[in-house]
Amino acid sequence: MAEIVPVILCGGNGTRLWPRSRASKPKPFLPLVGKQTLFEQAVSRCPASAGFSAPFVVTGAAHLEHVEAQLEQAEGSRIIVEPMARNTAAAIALAAYGLPADTIMLVCPSDHHIGRPDAFIEAAQAAAALASEGWLVSFGIEATAPETGFGYLKRGEAIAAADGAAGFRTAQFVEKPDLARAQAFLADGSYSWNGGIFAFRVQDFLAELEAHRPQIAGKVREAVEKGRLEGRNFHPDAATFALVEGDSVDYAVMENTTKAAMVPAAMQWSDIGNWHALHEALDHDDAGNTTRVTGEVELVDCRNVLVDSDGPRVSVIGLEDVVVVVDGDDVMVTSVAGAQKVGALRGAKNQ
Amino acid sequence: MAEIVPVILCGGNGTRLWPRSRASKPKPFLPLVGKQTLFEQAVSRCPASAGFSAPFVVTGAAHLEHVEAQLEQAEGSRIIVEPMARNTAAAIALAAYGLPADTIMLVCPSDHHIGRPDAFIEAAQAAAALASEGWLVSFGIEATAPETGFGYLKRGEAIAAADGAAGFRTAQFVEKPDLARAQAFLADGSYSWNGGIFAFRVQDFLAELEAHRPQIAGKVREAVEKGRLEGRNFHPDAATFALVEGDSVDYAVMENTTKAAMVPAAMQWSDIGNWHALHEALDHDDAGNTTRVTGEVELVDCRNVLVDSDGPRVSVIGLEDVVVVVDGDDVMVTSVAGAQKVGALRGAKNQ
Repeated sequence: MAEIVPVILCGGNGTRLWPRSRASKPKPFLPLVGKQTLFEQAVSRCPASAGFSAPFVVTGAAHLEHVEAQLEQAEGSRIIVEPMARNTAAAIALAAYGLPADTIMLVCPSDHHIGRPDAFIEAAQAAAALASEGWLVSFGIEATAPETGFGYLKRGEAIAAADGAAGFRTAQFVEKPDLARAQAFLADGSYSWNGGIFAFRVQDFLAELEAHRPQIAGKVREAVEKGRLEGRNFHPDAATFALVEGDSVDYAVMENTTKAAMVPAAMQWSDIGNWHALHEALDHDDAGNTTRVTGEVELVDCRNVLVDSDGPRVSVIGLEDVVVVVDGDDVMVTSVAGAQKVGALRGAKNQ
Repeated sequence: MAEIVPVILCGGNGTRLWPRSRASKPKPFLPLVGKQTLFEQAVSRCPASAGFSAPFVVTGAAHLEHVEAQLEQAEGSRIIVEPMARNTAAAIALAAYGLPADTIMLVCPSDHHIGRPDAFIEAAQAAAALASEGWLVSFGIEATAPETGFGYLKRGEAIAAADGAAGFRTAQFVEKPDLARAQAFLADGSYSWNGGIFAFRVQDFLAELEAHRPQIAGKVREAVEKGRLEGRNFHPDAATFALVEGDSVDYAVMENTTKAAMVPAAMQWSDIGNWHALHEALDHDDAGNTTRVTGEVELVDCRNVLVDSDGPRVSVIGLEDVVVVVDGDDVMVTSVAGAQKVGALRGAKNQ
């Protein structure tokens, strides 16, 4: 098989993890689960020992400093610096136009957590095998709850690569459902979450993009041709890239191609989409509590409480299903049910 | 009637209002309700216009700095500096031995809040009238809830002073009851709270103390005789005062005298005994929320939440019946039900 190049997308600010995640130090660059940052984990999940080449990272100028600080110098690694955000179709195309046509790209967000990297690698190798035969492959992440915040993939007929790697056609892409539909999907068993992880052969991805979104393909190609490489950093031409239409890879490519496939992945995935999701991804004590503090902390009569403090001592009494976060001059306290609303707080919006 | 001297007792640290109340700046000296501190309010409640003389304040060396800063210079006011704490019988005796025999002392704690000072004055004048005829008078504070944290007074037969001031004999002193008894007291209607506010004529108080606690009376008298006055500050002799037995005025005097009386007082009294009690004493918005902050605060989907912050912005989502306090390097979050346990937190104990 051709080499597999991890294409790691670093966008988004993670405002729902405010005040820990801030515009100045957003979610991918924080050690939210374990000692590595989510970005470092995304890179570490793709080791040479499992057939991966050095990564291509696509990021914005605002995050460049963090990427450079957290990405090891590895031969062949590249940082593609987007002059502005134009959504995932363009971001992936920026990498694709800089890679050989038969390269397999494994597209990964950098703000997710995966509890079982071994299962990730297994799925990645199966996806790469299918991609090398022309499939455009999504990871179908095992749905473990009736989530309304994710898109879903419906499993179609089984397919297999020449090397035996198994997957399925993607029968349907489903937008974020309401709760009743999400519950029905969970009961049905043939739906999985679309976590934004893909395996594409460069030539197939670009052919589909050129067919279905010629504006994006043409302008990104031009921005790459006019771009300049400085060390390992590649700067697409800003004036050209500014003209690119913004669209997601799902809309632009996956929902239009006839070669959409998926590989199932049960890898303890979490998008760490809010403080509740983060708490669930962390270890708990017997009462379900988790504390991540640099100073002192005391919990009395608490259940399922997460305390995250960068300094001040935090003392909590008699609470259940609550998150307490202290970051600099901000204290944020939310119920689990309220965690979705953190991004709408004035503090999170006016950074 | 003889003059009424307010005897204001400044002891205790208010650890259940930690972290706002601290050993270095305890509860009486904080502006917990309104702009005045509780101590300043205690002094202001006894104006000359209502027949009060300048106050005698009894406090410890640890609090002297705060008392001096918050007590106006008034002719005749005195600060009695206890070398060590020996409970309320000795504290009141320290004042009594420095006053003329026919003076009426109005003994007041300095860490309570009274929402209706007019009702306080009315009760004080009735109590003083009865005290001037030899009664040892407690304020019987209208019980408005089945509190288990207070002692109770049972109302006996009606009495009246020559000027018509009405009260009751105290039929019984009741220690802090369990909830069932407290509920029975509330239903009965003849029980009121013992809030530690008393009116005594000096000679009667000292006669009862000498009769029932001669050790306390003798040693306090000696400590006063050997004491020294520096400006308005009086320092009892420390070596002598150290020998005084510690006892409460309730045990030492009130439960032994045959002249115990009470005047009812419905004056929106609160001992501000914990954060829940403080929240109840403060104004609320329509959702029952109260914010006392120097910086920004945002509450979303909250009910009956109190936020008290000395600086950091506090953002709260989806909580009910919760108190959030930020003070220096401490963040304390408690349920209303947990408010009683604040004093047992490590932070509150290890100051």
